[in-house]
Amino acid sequence: MAWAHWGCCLWLVLLCAPAWSRSNAVNLQRTDVRNCSTNPPFLPVTAVNTTARITALRQQLQAQNLSAYIIPDTDAHMSEYIGRQDARRAWITGFTGTAGTAVVTMGKAALWTDSRYWTQAERQMDCNWDLHKEGNTIVSWLLNEIPAGGRVGFDPFLFSIDSWKSYDSALQGSDRQLMSIPVNLVDLAWGSERPPVPSQPIYALQEAFIGSTWQEKVADIRNQMRTHSKAPTAVLLSALDETAWLFNLRSSDIPYNPFFYSYTLLTDTSIRLFANSSRFSPETLQYLNSSCTGPMCVQLEDYNQVRDRVQAYAQGDVKIWIGTSYTTYGLYEVIPKEKLVEDTYSPVMVTKAVKNSKEQALLKATHVRDAVAVIRYLVWLEKNVPQGTVDEFSGAEFVEKLRGEENFFSGSSFETISASGLNAALAHYSPSEEVHRKLSTDEMYLLDSGGQYWDGTTDITRTVHWGTPSAFQKEAYTRVLMGNIDLSRLIFPASTSGRVVEAFARKALWDVGLNYGHGTGHGIGNFLCVHEWPVGFQSSNIAMAKGMFTSIEPGYYQDGEFGIRIEDVALVVEAQTKYPGTYLTFEVVSLVPYDRNLIDVSLLSPEHVGPELQRRQLWEEFQWLQQHTEPLSARAPHTSSTPHFGLPTPGHEIEEPTGGFPLVKPVTGGKAVGSPQNLLPQKRANGTALTIL
Amino acid sequence: MAWAHWGCCLWLVLLCAPAWSRSNAVNLQRTDVRNCSTNPPFLPVTAVNTTARITALRQQLQAQNLSAYIIPDTDAHMSEYIGRQDARRAWITGFTGTAGTAVVTMGKAALWTDSRYWTQAERQMDCNWDLHKEGNTIVSWLLNEIPAGGRVGFDPFLFSIDSWKSYDSALQGSDRQLMSIPVNLVDLAWGSERPPVPSQPIYALQEAFIGSTWQEKVADIRNQMRTHSKAPTAVLLSALDETAWLFNLRSSDIPYNPFFYSYTLLTDTSIRLFANSSRFSPETLQYLNSSCTGPMCVQLEDYNQVRDRVQAYAQGDVKIWIGTSYTTYGLYEVIPKEKLVEDTYSPVMVTKAVKNSKEQALLKATHVRDAVAVIRYLVWLEKNVPQGTVDEFSGAEFVEKLRGEENFFSGSSFETISASGLNAALAHYSPSEEVHRKLSTDEMYLLDSGGQYWDGTTDITRTVHWGTPSAFQKEAYTRVLMGNIDLSRLIFPASTSGRVVEAFARKALWDVGLNYGHGTGHGIGNFLCVHEWPVGFQSSNIAMAKGMFTSIEPGYYQDGEFGIRIEDVALVVEAQTKYPGTYLTFEVVSLVPYDRNLIDVSLLSPEHVGPELQRRQLWEEFQWLQQHTEPLSARAPHTSSTPHFGLPTPGHEIEEPTGGFPLVKPVTGGKAVGSPQNLLPQKRANGTALTIL
Repeated sequence: MAWAHWGCCLWLVLLCAPAWSRSNAVNLQRTDVRNCSTNPPFLPVTAVNTTARITALRQQLQAQNLSAYIIPDTDAHMSEYIGRQDARRAWITGFTGTAGTAVVTMGKAALWTDSRYWTQAERQMDCNWDLHKEGNTIVSWLLNEIPAGGRVGFDPFLFSIDSWKSYDSALQGSDRQLMSIPVNLVDLAWGSERPPVPSQPIYALQEAFIGSTWQEKVADIRNQMRTHSKAPTAVLLSALDETAWLFNLRSSDIPYNPFFYSYTLLTDTSIRLFANSSRFSPETLQYLNSSCTGPMCVQLEDYNQVRDRVQAYAQGDVKIWIGTSYTTYGLYEVIPKEKLVEDTYSPVMVTKAVKNSKEQALLKATHVRDAVAVIRYLVWLEKNVPQGTVDEFSGAEFVEKLRGEENFFSGSSFETISASGLNAALAHYSPSEEVHRKLSTDEMYLLDSGGQYWDGTTDITRTVHWGTPSAFQKEAYTRVLMGNIDLSRLIFPASTSGRVVEAFARKALWDVGLNYGHGTGHGIGNFLCVHEWPVGFQSSNIAMAKGMFTSIEPGYYQDGEFGIRIEDVALVVEAQTKYPGTYLTFEVVSLVPYDRNLIDVSLLSPEHVGPELQRRQLWEEFQWLQQHTEPLSARAPHTSSTPHFGLPTPGHEIEEPTGGFPLVKPVTGGKAVGSPQNLLPQKRANGTALTIL
Repeated sequence: MAWAHWGCCLWLVLLCAPAWSRSNAVNLQRTDVRNCSTNPPFLPVTAVNTTARITALRQQLQAQNLSAYIIPDTDAHMSEYIGRQDARRAWITGFTGTAGTAVVTMGKAALWTDSRYWTQAERQMDCNWDLHKEGNTIVSWLLNEIPAGGRVGFDPFLFSIDSWKSYDSALQGSDRQLMSIPVNLVDLAWGSERPPVPSQPIYALQEAFIGSTWQEKVADIRNQMRTHSKAPTAVLLSALDETAWLFNLRSSDIPYNPFFYSYTLLTDTSIRLFANSSRFSPETLQYLNSSCTGPMCVQLEDYNQVRDRVQAYAQGDVKIWIGTSYTTYGLYEVIPKEKLVEDTYSPVMVTKAVKNSKEQALLKATHVRDAVAVIRYLVWLEKNVPQGTVDEFSGAEFVEKLRGEENFFSGSSFETISASGLNAALAHYSPSEEVHRKLSTDEMYLLDSGGQYWDGTTDITRTVHWGTPSAFQKEAYTRVLMGNIDLSRLIFPASTSGRVVEAFARKALWDVGLNYGHGTGHGIGNFLCVHEWPVGFQSSNIAMAKGMFTSIEPGYYQDGEFGIRIEDVALVVEAQTKYPGTYLTFEVVSLVPYDRNLIDVSLLSPEHVGPELQRRQLWEEFQWLQQHTEPLSARAPHTSSTPHFGLPTPGHEIEEPTGGFPLVKPVTGGKAVGSPQNLLPQKRANGTALTIL
């Protein structure tokens, strides 16, 4: 999925922001949004009364002698999704969008959010709140609102190191002091109304679903500590998927994410896991070898003690290795600077990014079963949409039901984006039981969805049209597909950064003046995050390496009309090149066909899914797959067209279709340019064939 | 040019380093390099005796109570090329390579340089010097060599802000102090032997050669100050081309660069130019309006007073806008942090990067005349190389002589790379009168050269073969050319960073496992720098904008055999796309044909050069140009080949050649794949045609 719920990752939002920055001026005559300029103010039914909440918070400010308090939207682990008990900014403002920062002073309350959310904020907030859209930054507002000598409070566990640095540097010399308050003041105001912290069991994964034992992983990370030039004595893990991955433990503390609240301090001689110890069964405690204190014993410590324990450890002759992207200021500030070994990502984050052969096999198997569910859904849609009986919401429910029939399913990996017509052009649209659109053969439909399975996490987007798409829709779809293929077939040197190659996914669109405003892909985990950093195509991602998985997901969005996205997950594999060298390419593991109704050429790899459909006697689906992947007849092979697709790459070689020419014939400037492509047969390494037609 | 003399720009060297990191282990039996392990040590005749120099420097260290002194290789303006009087590291070490840092303690002397220069260092240094190759950084060496409490001295004018930060941060908490010593200690040791600072006249450019008057430029920069959110009251310019550009002044203080030593402090009410005032003629003083002190009067101040004057100005209620990339720590440290407005590049640097229409016309005209010189040289080579009468050095001299016959020529823009056979695979090869290779029809020849003209600066690389190139040479050349064309034809959104698109110049090479280890291009000036920052394709470059000029220069280097580089200069222009939007592409302004002997397809734009050759009655050269740009006959249009070139882009449209098919037929994996391309005719906007054949 491309963008939904990237709220907590500020750099992602900023990266996507240009696409969303269309002016959404609120019409003050509307009754679905607030109007604070009338007397009394007009408030829609969706607005939340926050007067008592703000009053309670201001009491806390007064007690701490603060002039202002900053409330970000993240949790203490810089998580992408947050639990209900961490939705502090939503509680204090009433605004539930996934991106935004609130600031409360003794006299004012203000929210900053990006243009995606302006209307939603005007619907949900009462007139206690000023909405800041552009121009006025939080710091310049603070400098206006609070007097010299004023103290600006924040919860250091909700500040990344970088946000702290940026506030600190902006306030330097201004005679306003940034105050780290380790107790969260919103929580104190929220009181007993605050949802409880999760307490369900934390469990170990079955051996069949893990790539290495936790002991092997611990040994590997310790080995990296030993060989590191700065000789760290410990690694401190703050991101929830780091600890979940290291110990092969899972739970369900966060929607769509099988994590549990935790930290790990892995030293050269001890393993300290900070979590709620009452959540471990005796078997899991035994699995963790938690009754001892040796170097291969996991000592459980209270989650809330992590700051004190890290501070105490940092008193010794130690060096603590952290990934600065996921460590909060709450832990950073208790470690003396000279005892820190700082990298952007922790060694666990970087190691986890490269899947070993078993993890690769698990993720591929997940994608086979996930493709079965999505294909069953597409077949069902093809029958039911023309009856007018399907809407975006019931569709989303049905595809989740179908995924639920697959082995090892453990819930969706994010909120399904099931969007018809113009809704698919909205950046963060998901249907609800109340608000949704009927699917129809008159418009395009975009499904961006994924599952959590015990063996892996999936994420796939398909865009379809059951009627007669317009020429522009077909052109846009084909160009998006061309981008997907151009990037997934690219051969590039080992250690190339994704940022350097992602333009290949855009070129076919750029050629005619089209583009998309979101990123081109992200890593994905084994029953972990659907957006697993630090793999991807953005400047903050690490270089591509064999064994990484990434989504590839170009799109095109026509505001008010339709949206297209074609997303596959691909494994980074070694490419066999004519001349020797270490080169990489992608092996696509998403196995759902593209919509041939929207393209001249259908590109897919049916050989993996077909046998599975047959084995499971899904004959109708098997037949549908066959139909949707059969060769097209040749079309005027000697007329002109644009050569587009690059050379076939290993893992993506091409079988000449029987009696047909592979054909891409986009239109440029109203004229057909170029000629047909005759791609000669080459056998795949495994003897199977990928048909391009 | 791709790399020669990028020595002072450390980030460039680091970027290129992987290409140069082949092991150059020194053979200790050789007599051309030193051997310090024998007794007495063996020193080649090329080694420089530095004993007295080091002794003199150590006296200065002692006087300043320093344990160590760091000697970088740059000047006080972070210049790419430096004057002889600034070659302090070369003087103290004997080693004249363009990249390297020396450190002298009371007991040791050490040089760090990259693998390009290891052999040269072993030839030029005596046994006072340790050569550090890899692994041991300067800071970790310092921590070993100097005792706790030791003071490490450096000249703050030779440290960029970033180098200072990096040393400062690495030494923090180590009980070694970094000491800024504003008087250069090497200069004191060098004494009267040090070459004098240049004193030749500083002159104003003729009106015909400037894009705007200095008054217009000053008004523009002041306008940017007024509209800046941080309201700077002054701009401080440190790079030499900033001041030269702002005032349309030139001189010749630095080889290949028409600059003069200077700083500018442009405030909202005054203009202060720091330079040697005795170098201005009465006319130039009048041109600068230097007899008054009003806001449009240029007040000349002594170059050596800049630090004191900036420090004094910074005492007021002011904000000084700097570009951190070119400002040295020597000025940075005298400005209180809260009075700094920091950007990576100054507004002058960024404004200068976009050429106005007159500057564009000037640079294009320069490239027409420069192409005449290079074409004359290629014609001459074609006749004389088979006679065996040309060598790399005489060739380099001759092409400079031919440039000298062009109007407004003012010297080379860098040291000519004239390299035959295996020499072209060396990263920084230039021939000398003593050491050079004869040009022959048996091997490839690479010429990377450029001129300084009053109206512009040029830089072009062509690679040729007058005999029978091998199949591999032809393939490599064609793929380099494909990369050049793929990038120069790309259509991309306005404000795209060069880093994001430069892989298009590499894809054709990557496809078969080939690559090159240097950057893909750099900005270029109007009678300014041949490598004009911040335009280019690297991560530190700013986004592409209409009116910028950049080189596009992919290459391929076969160690010990041959080197290929094809470099053009291109103007960033608006692209006309099918759908509305602000898109850019490149218009190539280098007008020298590629070598059809090395390709199946010749791509060039003769229509601009041809008339100029005719006008000047260079009939033989005109005929040669015609021959080298005539259409090829069709070759088996229905056989298979790889479709390669993208859609034609505006400014690069394609005329169908009479009676022929444009054809690209690279070989992949030993097999021909793909089919011929039939690119339909499209008229150029100006009615002329670019033949692709």
